[in-house]
Amino acid sequence: MLLQIIFYVAIAAEAMTAALAAGRRKMDWFGVCVLACVTALGGGTARDLVLGHYPLIWVENPYLLIICCAAAFITIALARYMAALRWPFLLLDALGLAAFTIIGCNVALEMGQQPIIVVVAGMITGIAGGIMRDILCNEVPLVFSSELYATVAIISGTLYYLGRSFDVPHDLLVLGTIAIGFALRVAAIVWKLEMPKFVYDKELR
Amino acid sequence: MLLQIIFYVAIAAEAMTAALAAGRRKMDWFGVCVLACVTALGGGTARDLVLGHYPLIWVENPYLLIICCAAAFITIALARYMAALRWPFLLLDALGLAAFTIIGCNVALEMGQQPIIVVVAGMITGIAGGIMRDILCNEVPLVFSSELYATVAIISGTLYYLGRSFDVPHDLLVLGTIAIGFALRVAAIVWKLEMPKFVYDKELR
Amino acid sequence: MLLQIIFYVAIAAEAMTAALAAGRRKMDWFGVCVLACVTALGGGTARDLVLGHYPLIWVENPYLLIICCAAAFITIALARYMAALRWPFLLLDALGLAAFTIIGCNVALEMGQQPIIVVVAGMITGIAGGIMRDILCNEVPLVFSSELYATVAIISGTLYYLGRSFDVPHDLLVLGTIAIGFALRVAAIVWKLEMPKFVYDKELR
Repeated sequence: MLLQIIFYVAIAAEAMTAALAAGRRKMDWFGVCVLACVTALGGGTARDLVLGHYPLIWVENPYLLIICCAAAFITIALARYMAALRWPFLLLDALGLAAFTIIGCNVALEMGQQPIIVVVAGMITGIAGGIMRDILCNEVPLVFSSELYATVAIISGTLYYLGRSFDVPHDLLVLGTIAIGFALRVAAIVWKLEMPKFVYDKELR
Repeated sequence: MLLQIIFYVAIAAEAMTAALAAGRRKMDWFGVCVLACVTALGGGTARDLVLGHYPLIWVENPYLLIICCAAAFITIALARYMAALRWPFLLLDALGLAAFTIIGCNVALEMGQQPIIVVVAGMITGIAGGIMRDILCNEVPLVFSSELYATVAIISGTLYYLGRSFDVPHDLLVLGTIAIGFALRVAAIVWKLEMPKFVYDKELR
Repeated sequence: MLLQIIFYVAIAAEAMTAALAAGRRKMDWFGVCVLACVTALGGGTARDLVLGHYPLIWVENPYLLIICCAAAFITIALARYMAALRWPFLLLDALGLAAFTIIGCNVALEMGQQPIIVVVAGMITGIAGGIMRDILCNEVPLVFSSELYATVAIISGTLYYLGRSFDVPHDLLVLGTIAIGFALRVAAIVWKLEMPKFVYDKELR
């Protein structure tokens, strides 16, 4: 229930930040809506394609597309006030990352997938939408080089999987996983925690 | 029947314009063929992946790949004459957009999808091939910022869906939808009709 | 059996060259692992999505992800020694191209696909991982403009399909196809054999 609410709020928040990214590329209203939908729903879509889990969530619940487009148009209308909202967006995105990860793990668990795939499914749900957004904006995906993000999804997913294996009460597990994932992501932003970079500048010869 | 003819002509026309885009990137003959196939058949492929509609049309009818490659080689052979053919290509592309949209709507209708998904399926069929072409050419997809294109697909798809709901005779409906979609697209090119742009140049802080 | 060994070695080699590409983009360790997995396993994934062949190979055998990540970390650890390994990597990649193609053809053959699709499935298995790597690195895919690569996959796939049709003993066929594919690819690198380029620099008007 809480998970559902966070899910919808996070979808809208993802759609809004994607709309701002579209605005930086001077896209038209259609492009803004597509980028909002792809970013907010792309993670779940990638997970479902990879697992062969049909129907896709937004094909079954098309109102999700409407939520994304509505969030996009709200962003267009209120663009002048958005610059001050960096922190609310970051916090909602951190909540959403944890919620998306749990939802993705659940899909894989229900399909009886192996442990690694459960965690990977959670991670894909959390990060693939942003990767698609960056590809459509013609950029190297941000998630490959910025503050801990995918790592947070992997840790949250692993905790959630372990909790399910040890029969931790579900509500407690969801709350705990979201709290830990949220705290980790916020800590990563505040203290600029990053994975080590791999810098290689030679050509093979 | 008419729809089938327009479908094949549009496939070939899409493949030819994609081949020219490949030529601008100095691709080799193989790259030209891949870009032609992806552009002409990518829309239907994306739709089928998203709907879980197997087998894909070109997997079932591999001669579609041959049509695309043949169109690519004709383009290579006759490249010097192509520059004068902007308008024929634009007109064929406009016809194709309407035809692809109708075909996409039909696939979703046969699967019993909800109204929004029917229109979205039509739109994906019409535009996703061009998006894939632009990604492979390392550009921000043109469809997000140029003259009305996706909008034409959405309008055509909505009209077609409404017509099917109200039992308009099918031949009449197909002809009417193609005529309206074609006219809209040509009008958009002639009068440079565009969706409003969303321009946002601030960073969140 | 030999095919299996070559398959694993090639997966690791693909992952290692992808890790070097990630290092040139200054990605973090997570990005390096994702790029390694996508490059090494993306070809098989694309083939399976297109054919509707579930479960995907790495979803069924998640240890493949571990092999790719391990190869990525070995690359990070031994990066200083990698520059001298251009030829070993090229040779392993050439072996892998032939092995991936055969494996892809086999999947399509088992599904009873038509001849063209068998060869296309082999080719996709051989080349799509590299295309995904280049898209994630924000570059026009190399395979569209460099020495014969996809062509080698198409020739290997066609030979393998013909061999299967004429009941050539399977071990002999696999060995022969790999030998020919390997030799062709190495010849292409040594003598810089390329497909003709299509260069087009006009805008349509």
